[in-house]
Amino acid sequence: MKRYRHKTRVVKIGNVPIGGSNPVAIQSMAKFKTSDLERTLAQIKSLEACGCEIIRVAVKDDSDAAAIKKLKAGIKIPLVADIHFHARLALAAIENGADKIRLNPGNIRKEKEIREIVAALKAAKIPLRIGLNSGSVQGTHVSAGSMSEKLVKSALSYIRTIEKLKFHDIVISLKANNVLDTMQAYRKIAKLCDYPLHLGVTATGSPVKGMIKSSIALGALLLEGIGDTIRVSLTEDPANEVQACRAILESVGLRHFGPELISCPTCGRCEVDLSSLVRELEGSLQGFKKPLKVAVMGCVVNGPGEAMEADVGVAFGKKEGILFKKGKAQGKVSFGSCARQLLNEMEKL
Amino acid sequence: MKRYRHKTRVVKIGNVPIGGSNPVAIQSMAKFKTSDLERTLAQIKSLEACGCEIIRVAVKDDSDAAAIKKLKAGIKIPLVADIHFHARLALAAIENGADKIRLNPGNIRKEKEIREIVAALKAAKIPLRIGLNSGSVQGTHVSAGSMSEKLVKSALSYIRTIEKLKFHDIVISLKANNVLDTMQAYRKIAKLCDYPLHLGVTATGSPVKGMIKSSIALGALLLEGIGDTIRVSLTEDPANEVQACRAILESVGLRHFGPELISCPTCGRCEVDLSSLVRELEGSLQGFKKPLKVAVMGCVVNGPGEAMEADVGVAFGKKEGILFKKGKAQGKVSFGSCARQLLNEMEKL
Repeated sequence: MKRYRHKTRVVKIGNVPIGGSNPVAIQSMAKFKTSDLERTLAQIKSLEACGCEIIRVAVKDDSDAAAIKKLKAGIKIPLVADIHFHARLALAAIENGADKIRLNPGNIRKEKEIREIVAALKAAKIPLRIGLNSGSVQGTHVSAGSMSEKLVKSALSYIRTIEKLKFHDIVISLKANNVLDTMQAYRKIAKLCDYPLHLGVTATGSPVKGMIKSSIALGALLLEGIGDTIRVSLTEDPANEVQACRAILESVGLRHFGPELISCPTCGRCEVDLSSLVRELEGSLQGFKKPLKVAVMGCVVNGPGEAMEADVGVAFGKKEGILFKKGKAQGKVSFGSCARQLLNEMEKL
Repeated sequence: MKRYRHKTRVVKIGNVPIGGSNPVAIQSMAKFKTSDLERTLAQIKSLEACGCEIIRVAVKDDSDAAAIKKLKAGIKIPLVADIHFHARLALAAIENGADKIRLNPGNIRKEKEIREIVAALKAAKIPLRIGLNSGSVQGTHVSAGSMSEKLVKSALSYIRTIEKLKFHDIVISLKANNVLDTMQAYRKIAKLCDYPLHLGVTATGSPVKGMIKSSIALGALLLEGIGDTIRVSLTEDPANEVQACRAILESVGLRHFGPELISCPTCGRCEVDLSSLVRELEGSLQGFKKPLKVAVMGCVVNGPGEAMEADVGVAFGKKEGILFKKGKAQGKVSFGSCARQLLNEMEKL
């Protein structure tokens, strides 16, 4: 099935092109003080390992800007410098090799400063993200209208300023602190320009609620064909942000990162500890690259059906299950040996 | 803003009406053997306490059917008996006071049995959920078409059989093991009938992925006005299913269950341990009923803006923050006393 995708121009962030027909790229943000090189480098490397494709770092002062050069030498993925308030930090970040700059129209507004930054972006041949957030949109002095209208109007006004400087290497984000405003803002801007869109909900609260808000907003927008790169903002370890981005992209069928695990929620019919089996399998499947479907089901109601539809699967009855492979029953399997046998069968496929 | 909602008839499950303009109700399922009265009762009571509004139990054998009477005596929310394979268990569950019966068209198909069950439902004046799952749809012998078409055709064929018996107290669910099939199935059935829809994705895999799949599918459908009751199926503690249901309904703006917490994901700018503060507040806010917005933000970029927009909020700078109340700065607050001061201010509002 060919799915509709909102047409955007291609913008390259280091070696990662976004927009056009490129895969929706996964972003996260390092959370230690950027100039704390040891911890920031370790965090970025662990994020790379779990699937982060673009990393952003806060540039709060000159020591952070200086750190970019050293970080770039130690990491593989493109690095984005997050700039607020101080144009000189944008210039320093570009000088030090950042692959993209994020500016906030809510706090860098002087035309002379914008001109200087754009000149430096052109010279370095790197793109700019114009990043609006509900928490700083008041700084743009667009005060009329709903939150989504304020985000869109502020972005468009900033875009026009930048376009006058003949610069079009632009990515846009419009993050509100809730699902409805965020979705409305992105839907509106998608109709008004063809710059790639960086999707995110901001200030999402507790990690579980943040994951749910982000899943709904990003999921619904991606299903509508909107979005070229995504970031899930969670008040916790950024590795969980990357995991959530991957799961969102898999869930909407846009990308696949290894096996898909299918397991029932269990109920009073289930006689095995399916939950522990799912945890065990989830761990074992992490390094597994083949995009196979694996089902582990707790009883005979939906078990045989899901196990047969999967590449490999087990439907449990009393303590033991029936192993299925490509739709065919392979015989009985004990609960204790189930994970090992499933992995063996997956290796062979 | 008046939002579109797919028009459905009202069906009463015990004292909980669903469909029409009633609030989208939250369901979960008990996970111990239903006849294990002590554990099942304790689980249902804890689910009631965290916001579950309708509870389902598996009725696998006669001892489970018998347990319904005793469970009903100990709980406040309506109880749904989940029946597969055996018509006599449906009859026994109705006899024992179940508030709704769920039948699976994939495994109870004999016309004589359906007639008997419907007669008992009519006599007891309780509704029926016709619940299709991707894992058992093959039992309906509808084999042509995509998964969503199979789910819809199987449901419609069963509905026609039941309607001939002049019974219309029907709820429908069409759960596939993935977002796209599930959404397609519900969108199709919503165009074809006016029975209330019970939304869910089935066999969702690991808890985090299950939460993400459910959030996307249920969130997107609810945003389209589809869905009268929801269940999030997770291979883990059902309390987390209820928590996820609540967060989904809050995120799409359909229901509110107490304060909304707004917190930034933190980055290299943040100089306090915001994550621990968010965990502390999340705990303290659980009993709090007022639908207030509370913001705790890690720095001055989006902090003052979000804190001002919230009912109460703190924007941190270096180690200490500025407390805001209804948009006005109230003075400095230390990190250590922040949670307590926010709660104090909330009590006063």
